[in-house]
Amino acid sequence: MANLTSLSEILLSRRQKLAELIDFPVVLWSGSTTSRNFPANLFPFRANSHFLYFAGIPQENAVIRLEGSNLQLFMDDPHPSSTLWHGETPSREEIAAKIGADDARPMSELKDFLADAATIAVQDAPTWTQQSQLLDRWILPRQLPQGIDLDLAKAIVSLRIIHDESALMELRKSSAVSIEAHKAGMSATKKAAVEAEIRAAMEAVIMGHNMTTAYASIVTIHGEILHNIHYHHSLQPGDLLLADVGAETESGWAADITRTWPVSGTFSSTQRDIYDIVLAAHDTCIENIAPGMEYRDIHLIAAMVIAEGLVDLGILRGKPEDLVKMDLHALFFPHGIGHLLGLDVHDMEDLGDLAGYEEGRTRSDRFGLGSLRLNRSLQPGMLVTIEPGFYQVPTILNNPKTRNQYQYLVNWERLEQFADVRGIRIEDDVLVTEEGCEVLTATLPTQAEEIESLVS
Amino acid sequence: MANLTSLSEILLSRRQKLAELIDFPVVLWSGSTTSRNFPANLFPFRANSHFLYFAGIPQENAVIRLEGSNLQLFMDDPHPSSTLWHGETPSREEIAAKIGADDARPMSELKDFLADAATIAVQDAPTWTQQSQLLDRWILPRQLPQGIDLDLAKAIVSLRIIHDESALMELRKSSAVSIEAHKAGMSATKKAAVEAEIRAAMEAVIMGHNMTTAYASIVTIHGEILHNIHYHHSLQPGDLLLADVGAETESGWAADITRTWPVSGTFSSTQRDIYDIVLAAHDTCIENIAPGMEYRDIHLIAAMVIAEGLVDLGILRGKPEDLVKMDLHALFFPHGIGHLLGLDVHDMEDLGDLAGYEEGRTRSDRFGLGSLRLNRSLQPGMLVTIEPGFYQVPTILNNPKTRNQYQYLVNWERLEQFADVRGIRIEDDVLVTEEGCEVLTATLPTQAEEIESLVS
Repeated sequence: MANLTSLSEILLSRRQKLAELIDFPVVLWSGSTTSRNFPANLFPFRANSHFLYFAGIPQENAVIRLEGSNLQLFMDDPHPSSTLWHGETPSREEIAAKIGADDARPMSELKDFLADAATIAVQDAPTWTQQSQLLDRWILPRQLPQGIDLDLAKAIVSLRIIHDESALMELRKSSAVSIEAHKAGMSATKKAAVEAEIRAAMEAVIMGHNMTTAYASIVTIHGEILHNIHYHHSLQPGDLLLADVGAETESGWAADITRTWPVSGTFSSTQRDIYDIVLAAHDTCIENIAPGMEYRDIHLIAAMVIAEGLVDLGILRGKPEDLVKMDLHALFFPHGIGHLLGLDVHDMEDLGDLAGYEEGRTRSDRFGLGSLRLNRSLQPGMLVTIEPGFYQVPTILNNPKTRNQYQYLVNWERLEQFADVRGIRIEDDVLVTEEGCEVLTATLPTQAEEIESLVS
Repeated sequence: MANLTSLSEILLSRRQKLAELIDFPVVLWSGSTTSRNFPANLFPFRANSHFLYFAGIPQENAVIRLEGSNLQLFMDDPHPSSTLWHGETPSREEIAAKIGADDARPMSELKDFLADAATIAVQDAPTWTQQSQLLDRWILPRQLPQGIDLDLAKAIVSLRIIHDESALMELRKSSAVSIEAHKAGMSATKKAAVEAEIRAAMEAVIMGHNMTTAYASIVTIHGEILHNIHYHHSLQPGDLLLADVGAETESGWAADITRTWPVSGTFSSTQRDIYDIVLAAHDTCIENIAPGMEYRDIHLIAAMVIAEGLVDLGILRGKPEDLVKMDLHALFFPHGIGHLLGLDVHDMEDLGDLAGYEEGRTRSDRFGLGSLRLNRSLQPGMLVTIEPGFYQVPTILNNPKTRNQYQYLVNWERLEQFADVRGIRIEDDVLVTEEGCEVLTATLPTQAEEIESLVS
């Protein structure tokens, strides 16, 4: 994060922008590690994203306090005996120097600097318990912030939603590695017998770059199970493999890419027909991304292109615009067109819809819109995913009520001819620019022929 | 786990053995997932090991109640809307049938079945909070159990410490995959530029078998940092790479293997000298493992072989037996010779030293013995690691007090000639048998020449 500008300068600039929005001190905790099956066996540490934004480094059990442009660091130096097990680790003073802290103190002094301070809950229980105790109010990760904490959350959203140059440098790194991972997955397909082997080839690229996955990878021949994180299915030549895999840099910046490819290396004609509809939706959405555009309208563009395509294929009957109004597209595309991307793969989703939904807007109760995670007017510097899909979800399509309600609008017999298309998704990471947009993940092909040529 | 005998028969047999030891009901929670950076972004679920031992499957948010040979399952069926995101998951009744439960009920009924029941704390805070609330006493993961919970813990230790045939089947699977991972790491070394690439090659094998790592992998040229879980160092031809990597099967059974190999493919003569001492310690320990043998004595055998070797090399001066009594070996081998292995890589370490230390025994305050995790008389069915090592830990060896105290017993000038040996460890998983022992990980070579031939 510190190539063009030093880390301390980047962080100072972020603090100064925050200080223009609020007039109270801010205290952010990094969080602590979580035990897996016994206390010493830990899940990998992930620092809280708001802490990372203002501290830049994933330091465990640390707290920063921001007031105006002033930065204080609170952390304890490691116990001398820990050097036997963990080696020499940077001291508080060294970390303070690295991040440009004006002051550095042991954790025991934090309690003296909390008056009138706002904070945001971290995810791990020991830390949010500590937050609650020290601030003498409930700071809970699954409850929306209130009072000055809400004011702080809104201010941070307005900063983090527009990526600065140093954030973009990191985001480009995670994109590049994720692209390489997807290519490795395609290359590993013909030799692989089970999904797990393709997942391994993809995650090995990420791990080899000393990055981690930004979320639980989806690598499956059952793409119709939207959050399928099992990898045990064996691969058959007629299957499509859906891989939704993204890397995260050491300082926490995420990528999020999905590609769908044929296990045999060649799409069947039915798979190709549907693939091209999803790709058309993907391309049309991206063509329309520009400052001032409503993201909800981008979603509806995808819905329209999918409806048109399915009408052309004889799967849906009627006028596409009418079908979209009736949410017929959502039978096959039941999720939103995408979400914000940044330090979190669903950026700032720890704050509920505070980042995703413009003030005054709330989730729709329409089946075709309720899952939309982002409903804002797009602005330069926003990074969003564009991820249309087509899925044959049994619980949706085999529901007798659905079958009855849409007996005429869906040509169910025609649909049966597309039984080898269980799930297709194509997802890229798109930066809104002054001119329109830039696809950060554009060097990973999306065209069917190019995808086929990469499967080996 | 269910090849020779069905899962339900295995579990019944374990319940029956437990029922011979205690006369109160037992309630075990599996635990819940933990959020990473926002609520929906989760660390991989790991079920509590005691639950796994008696339930056999890693079911989230489930509870089992054991009373005599009776098994009850408490869990909620997934909400119907979850099938869109997660697909069809087995129902409570299906899981009950699979594990041989006599009765299956929703979680809301658990509170009616808790009278006089003992339990063991899980690691995740929401679940141990629930345990504490429902049982109306503190059930804390970092506090030793008390009362009937302690009686239960002791009974479970006596069962889990002696592995049954179905446990061994799983342990052999994780061993086999871990062996393959180490070979892949050796094969990937010459092409690799940084530690992370070797780690990736190793973990990809584990992931490709749809297993997970049993603990945070150590893959480093700085083996002298005992718990070094960073992977960013670049590899130089003169470096030794220490890899401590083990797989865990889907039902939770762990392996734990360490090998140390030269990045160039050839040990230097100084590296080879020390390697052969560590290997001699390893081999001598394993030769001595047999029922009735004290594990502490196995540790002291390693200490003696290392001391003898270092005297032969001119690094230590004196009689080996005297040097061991003075803990001189521990300057270079500061940890214990190993630990129990099973569902946890340090098996049952969630219970502190209850499993590792025979009743009435406690940790030594001797520098050379205090880190010993296991102090029991060995019995057939126990699985232990044997992992001698040699490390030049700067905080130990550069300590002026140490230098002064041992100015005559250590030939510090001679030691300087071994500067290219920062850390060596050789670790195998050894099952105590009636006849002596069986090395589960024996097909992975330990001899220096064989190791060299695998590095490519």
